Amino acid sequence: MSVKLEIAQEILLNSVAVMPKERVMLSECWRRILGETVVADIDFPPFDRSPLDGYALIAEEVQSATPANPVILQQIDYIPAGDTPRKPVLPGTAIRIMTGAPIPPGATGVVRLEDTVVNGENVSILDGTGSNKNICLRGEEIGRGEDVIAAGTVINAGVMGMLAVLGKGRPSVFCKPRVAMIATGSEIVPVDFPVTPGKIRNSNSYMLSAQAAEAGAQTVLLSNASDNVEEIAYLLESASDCDVFITTGGASIGDCDFIGEVYKKLGITLLFDRVSIKPGMAVLAGIRDGKLYLGLSGNPAAAAISFEQLVRPVLMKLGGRKVWWRPRVKATLASPFTKKSGATRFVWARCWQTANDILVEPSRGQSNGMLKSAMGANALIVIPENSPPLPVNTDVEVILLTDA
Amino acid sequence: MSVKLEIAQEILLNSVAVMPKERVMLSECWRRILGETVVADIDFPPFDRSPLDGYALIAEEVQSATPANPVILQQIDYIPAGDTPRKPVLPGTAIRIMTGAPIPPGATGVVRLEDTVVNGENVSILDGTGSNKNICLRGEEIGRGEDVIAAGTVINAGVMGMLAVLGKGRPSVFCKPRVAMIATGSEIVPVDFPVTPGKIRNSNSYMLSAQAAEAGAQTVLLSNASDNVEEIAYLLESASDCDVFITTGGASIGDCDFIGEVYKKLGITLLFDRVSIKPGMAVLAGIRDGKLYLGLSGNPAAAAISFEQLVRPVLMKLGGRKVWWRPRVKATLASPFTKKSGATRFVWARCWQTANDILVEPSRGQSNGMLKSAMGANALIVIPENSPPLPVNTDVEVILLTDA
Repeated sequence: MSVKLEIAQEILLNSVAVMPKERVMLSECWRRILGETVVADIDFPPFDRSPLDGYALIAEEVQSATPANPVILQQIDYIPAGDTPRKPVLPGTAIRIMTGAPIPPGATGVVRLEDTVVNGENVSILDGTGSNKNICLRGEEIGRGEDVIAAGTVINAGVMGMLAVLGKGRPSVFCKPRVAMIATGSEIVPVDFPVTPGKIRNSNSYMLSAQAAEAGAQTVLLSNASDNVEEIAYLLESASDCDVFITTGGASIGDCDFIGEVYKKLGITLLFDRVSIKPGMAVLAGIRDGKLYLGLSGNPAAAAISFEQLVRPVLMKLGGRKVWWRPRVKATLASPFTKKSGATRFVWARCWQTANDILVEPSRGQSNGMLKSAMGANALIVIPENSPPLPVNTDVEVILLTDA
Repeated sequence: MSVKLEIAQEILLNSVAVMPKERVMLSECWRRILGETVVADIDFPPFDRSPLDGYALIAEEVQSATPANPVILQQIDYIPAGDTPRKPVLPGTAIRIMTGAPIPPGATGVVRLEDTVVNGENVSILDGTGSNKNICLRGEEIGRGEDVIAAGTVINAGVMGMLAVLGKGRPSVFCKPRVAMIATGSEIVPVDFPVTPGKIRNSNSYMLSAQAAEAGAQTVLLSNASDNVEEIAYLLESASDCDVFITTGGASIGDCDFIGEVYKKLGITLLFDRVSIKPGMAVLAGIRDGKLYLGLSGNPAAAAISFEQLVRPVLMKLGGRKVWWRPRVKATLASPFTKKSGATRFVWARCWQTANDILVEPSRGQSNGMLKSAMGANALIVIPENSPPLPVNTDVEVILLTDA
């Protein structure tokens, strides 16, 4: 059954549930997906505190202070950061206070050190302007009980800091989906193997494992298999702990296209066996016990696009993310695309911003191995079905190969 | 000594050399930085090969073939992928060939299976159009001896695949810089600790370790220290294998700002102690034995910006990258920025593309803890020194918080 891309995506996304969760040390959580909605267990700041080194005092008493006419206060205590106030500020007094230290009772402002001069037990305030603003109020950033971070959030640097503020030393995150990867084809040899006539090295498994990593999954890199149903079936069954099973090669309709047979042998139900996109039309998708099996083309160009369009959204959903799709923008072709396209076509490209526009240029060498074009690409041009060759300056839709 | 941002960046970048290299299993190389320029050890494809399942034949013999008037050839052999040709194609003959298999001598084209009908030993060619294009020529993607990937390239999925094609099972990559991280301040408690009055949890170390990871470094997360020269000095010396040493807190000029004293005690030469940006003005930089020491503010807002502007480029250079800076674009303010700025200011923001423009909006809550604003930011607005408050629709420069 050949299906449209959108249908294929829908079938696959509907076939998988989100991964279970695990608790992980916060230091290991960068790029992980938060599995819990984090509620503040404290106000933050947890107490009124000073944002600078200076004197806590009664702001109203120092409004008129100038260098020529300072206000002189009695220094009655000292609060370093981490300490707690022992005395209140009373009229005519001030308490020396350090950045991050709690504001003592009675104080309504802080004057920074640079605007003071100390004389024995007294301190001269030279400028009191705005001293009432130099207090960070308890709970002004976060109120206790507030939902601060939603489940499904990607843990970036800011989120990481916030989790620490809220005491999440071991937050709940979604388990990473595990992807079993097998390159099939009797012409394939391992990457560290001598290349003899008729053979090529396995590059698909490595390329796709990097694509999987970028989608937040971990790859179980299995051995490559020759065009042999028994071998491929054995390898697939050996990785029963995995969540998604990807093979490359043998997905088409030729004499050596064994993946359909493997699915039959293993009782994997075929979902579809062709998707109307170029490259990457030859794709088998199957399901067994809630786990997805995807047979991609042995051609790297085709396999990479099929992965990008079909497997990536599935891994994003499995991994607990809220957003499964890459951002898309409008751009202008800076050089022509000379092929006409029957099916929807995805073209590796490089896009860049100019003063008025985003320009995009197809990478060279699309027709063949494609690895060169994919290496430097930061975008995919989406060419709609039944498009003629596109001249320079055509407006096109572009998928940005970034999460930002 | 207070310095301008550009000077501070230059001083720091000139102080570090690029990391040494190591060999790493290709499967572990995603996001690593290639340490060698990779030269092709083979042509790729390594032989003329078929891009599809079909019949290798003499293209000139089948130009006129139509379903009504097929050209009938004798099938004389069969070449699966991974095999080598045994016979040449002679006039009037064809060899069945699978995707990826070598083109036999004598053949000048391949007709796909769908355009053929087999009758015993004969095969009828129904359409020979373009059959001469169905050959991937030896070396058409890569020529042996060609420089294919430059040292300093980030290993993305395409590069990973290409390294595999070229047999780099254990490529040379730059060692990841190691960053020692210490949060100082007597008010700081570990993330899993009870928060008692006057205390807050250590969030800076986690936030900055994620920023370091994003810049390709690994973090050595040391214990937090109280405002105590001995403690901080001991912790710094305990991580002598690290390449960059970061402390947060104690970087200003107050009573508890011990980092300058620590540098004196350890014989670290001060490079500068103030940078004219906001937030993040209070930064100490020192050097000893070619290793950098950076004392950032204890305020997360300030520490994050100082890291972004001063530490990130250093880690990018150390890590062997060719590009140390984030991409910058012009954007239009979608909401006003109401503060005037003496020094250059960096404002967490969210930017998005519209039909004609990139719009950008400062995150809320910039003034205080900032973690909330950093959490959802995908950009930093650069506000030049001596700017008045900026109204809606002002054109601003924006740093994109992405590598793409």
